Amino acid sequence: MQNVYSFQTAGQIIAGKDSIQKLTDHLYVIGQEVKSALIISQPSISELGFVETIKNQLEQKEIHVTVNLDILPEPTVENIEEVFQKTSETQYDVLIGIGGGSVLDTTKILSVLMTNDKEVRDLLGTNMVEKAGVPTILIPTTSGTGAEVTPNAIVTIPEEELKVGIVSRYLLPAIVLLDPLLTVGLPKPITAATGMDAFTHSLESFISNKANPLSDMFALESIRLISSSIVEAYENGSSVEAREKMLIGSMYGGMALTSAGTAAVHALAYPLGGKFKIPHGVANSMLLPHVMEFNLDACTERLALVAEPMGLEVRELSDEEKAKKVIDKISEWTKTLEIPQNLEAYGVKDQDIAELAVSASQVTRLLNNNPKEVSISEMETIYRKLLS
Amino acid sequence: MQNVYSFQTAGQIIAGKDSIQKLTDHLYVIGQEVKSALIISQPSISELGFVETIKNQLEQKEIHVTVNLDILPEPTVENIEEVFQKTSETQYDVLIGIGGGSVLDTTKILSVLMTNDKEVRDLLGTNMVEKAGVPTILIPTTSGTGAEVTPNAIVTIPEEELKVGIVSRYLLPAIVLLDPLLTVGLPKPITAATGMDAFTHSLESFISNKANPLSDMFALESIRLISSSIVEAYENGSSVEAREKMLIGSMYGGMALTSAGTAAVHALAYPLGGKFKIPHGVANSMLLPHVMEFNLDACTERLALVAEPMGLEVRELSDEEKAKKVIDKISEWTKTLEIPQNLEAYGVKDQDIAELAVSASQVTRLLNNNPKEVSISEMETIYRKLLS
Ligand SMILES: NC(=O)c1ccc[n+]([C@@H]2O[C@H](COP(=O)([O-])OP(=O)(O)OC[C@H]3O[C@@H](n4cnc5c(N)ncnc54)[C@H](O)[C@@H]3O)[C@@H](O)[C@H]2O)c1
Ligand SMILES: NC(=O)c1ccc[n+]([C@@H]2O[C@H](COP(=O)([O-])OP(=O)(O)OC[C@H]3O[C@@H](n4cnc5c(N)ncnc54)[C@H](O)[C@@H]3O)[C@@H](O)[C@H]2O)c1
Ligand SMILES: [Fe+2]
Ligand SMILES: [Fe+2]
Repeated sequence: MQNVYSFQTAGQIIAGKDSIQKLTDHLYVIGQEVKSALIISQPSISELGFVETIKNQLEQKEIHVTVNLDILPEPTVENIEEVFQKTSETQYDVLIGIGGGSVLDTTKILSVLMTNDKEVRDLLGTNMVEKAGVPTILIPTTSGTGAEVTPNAIVTIPEEELKVGIVSRYLLPAIVLLDPLLTVGLPKPITAATGMDAFTHSLESFISNKANPLSDMFALESIRLISSSIVEAYENGSSVEAREKMLIGSMYGGMALTSAGTAAVHALAYPLGGKFKIPHGVANSMLLPHVMEFNLDACTERLALVAEPMGLEVRELSDEEKAKKVIDKISEWTKTLEIPQNLEAYGVKDQDIAELAVSASQVTRLLNNNPKEVSISEMETIYRKLLS
Repeated sequence: MQNVYSFQTAGQIIAGKDSIQKLTDHLYVIGQEVKSALIISQPSISELGFVETIKNQLEQKEIHVTVNLDILPEPTVENIEEVFQKTSETQYDVLIGIGGGSVLDTTKILSVLMTNDKEVRDLLGTNMVEKAGVPTILIPTTSGTGAEVTPNAIVTIPEEELKVGIVSRYLLPAIVLLDPLLTVGLPKPITAATGMDAFTHSLESFISNKANPLSDMFALESIRLISSSIVEAYENGSSVEAREKMLIGSMYGGMALTSAGTAAVHALAYPLGGKFKIPHGVANSMLLPHVMEFNLDACTERLALVAEPMGLEVRELSDEEKAKKVIDKISEWTKTLEIPQNLEAYGVKDQDIAELAVSASQVTRLLNNNPKEVSISEMETIYRKLLS
């Protein structure tokens, strides 16, 4: 637990079924007149009609709207700079990102590229952004990253085969809009992987060395909401109630990690994304039970504390038994949610493990938060558990 | 429960024991260089050395500091305008309020008076402030109002014998700093009254017609924290642990009310403050059990839900029994905390009741949130319960 701790979040959060219809009611939050907007999204999301809904609403207020759908999943530096080249000729009063973490992170980075005379690579790391960006509105369509409320954006650096974070309070949006109806059509595998990513944020924040009373509240409420809805959202995707719990739960996960940080699971997941293009949520879900088993003796009490919010029947049990039940439940979910359990399916071979571990060991920003030090050889052991 | 709901808060929240020593580490949040600061406080707080601590820290960073200690408890329009006259000749990069709700609200209002060419009376009501103010840093020294995180400021209007709110997102501060050590010396009666004010914020938000998943989380966590520490903070004021729980709990109360609003207790309390100068927390504490008894049938289930976070043994009980236990506990607290129970002690006479009720009935902004309509004659009945 930290002695002095801090928290920051989006300017305004608007939530609830059909809240997307009310977006223009909240534009005053931007604090200056909005005459032109850039919507950032992807074809798969545009096809569902959400981009059109927002565009029409803005045009009714006589706002000039430009749309760019060129964002790739888990975008590279080059992808982001290409989109920047295409969009930076015009001046926008607001950037609106509608999509998963990939779109939201790209929107956040574009916003600061537009006001700072820098390249993406100059911004990597903590507090490298010098000036506030163009105000953003972030509208998640996955319940996963919590990127809508974090000061972080993650980019893939192909030549380093790694994913790296940009951390700056200037990445926080002016407005976040959480409409569960946007997530109702999320395909099953994406529901599963992104949902487990959200859960990982909250669990890692709760056991983080930087955990504190603020992050704990968000983490535990997130764990409660996700645990009560992740299987339902997966099996019965049209349940708006389950979708809303997942969406609020993943936002709280973002709030928790903003204050307490993620840890070894995320550190080990980044090279799997950077080198083997394993989707972020899948990489986290695979690693989560194994890393928690590794961490167990260093955070037994904390792990035990999440049993009850997870809805587990654990009265009378010792802390160690509770903590084990928590890990068992996570393993059970990965099966129920049919999340891949084997790195070989993504082309990872035993001889890649050493390099993966070296890459992961460089993510010190997150490893510092882990309740237990992880040596390179321990990382290798963890990765090897995912080879059959 | 509302369908579409929203939330907003301070730019950055810094918390923990001794966090006051770290204030200048966070000045970058202001987003522009800070060369001059105005500290707003009161003599009673300055005597405790807190103003000096902040001043020295700022001066070490070569920031020019001006101090004004002229803020009166529960300030009137005139008091605020006087302070504005005295301070508005200089330009400040930041205003720092250190004190209870009276100081924090004054700081918020001064900030927007300095940038909007308006008088206090022009700003009364919702969204009447046109321009962002001078950035503020709010440092509470009571655990009560939650004003450090709300977009509201309350002023006394002497000629109307009422307290009125200014509501604007421009009143939200850039930085909030919560150091429990600042509240350790809070006198017993102020600990009691301000603590009950905080509890009232959370309970009213939880039963509000505008309650929603976001406000509920803050309200319940606030209720949990305050219930577990209010008696300890009162009886053993030097307990930093109890003081920290109260301080975080009252902030969450502010977050809850920002999203869901307070209700009839606050509406009935305002004329007691405006006409008879009953301190805000005392007025709320006196009214709370009686208004909840009146509300009981309209929100039995919600009141029942707070029994467990309050730490009450209620398993096996019906919702109605649980709700009654909640109200009984509140009444018990008002006795343990030695909060005055009698309006006569403040000079209120039976013949004043009719006018008080008419005044309270004008606070429609809050009465609209109450789960049950309150007629003027029902208000009179509630006030009369406080005459012996
Ligand atoms: N900024 C942060 O704080 C943070 C935190 C964690 C992860 N991340 C990053 O976020 C990215 C992952 O984001 P993600 O997990 O949300 O995945 P994603 O954004 O890559 O989306 C996954 C796929 O789902 C599709 N999709 C999204 N919403 C859909 C919908 N409603 N219906 C149908 N299809 C939809 C997308 O088009 C994409 O093909 C990674 O780059 C990761 O590193 C960022
Ligand atoms: N803005 C909001 O959201 C909001 C919410 C609720 C109430 N309020 C308003 O806040 C005001 C009440 O604020 P309050 O209850 O904090 O009381 P207060 O600020 O009037 O303080 C009460 C007394 O305690 C003294 N004091 C404060 N901190 C102290 C400390 N650490 N040690 C010793 N003495 C200390 C003050 O000097 C004052 O005399 C009212 O005007 C009320 O209407 C505002
Ligand atoms: Fe993640
Ligand atoms: Fe209050």
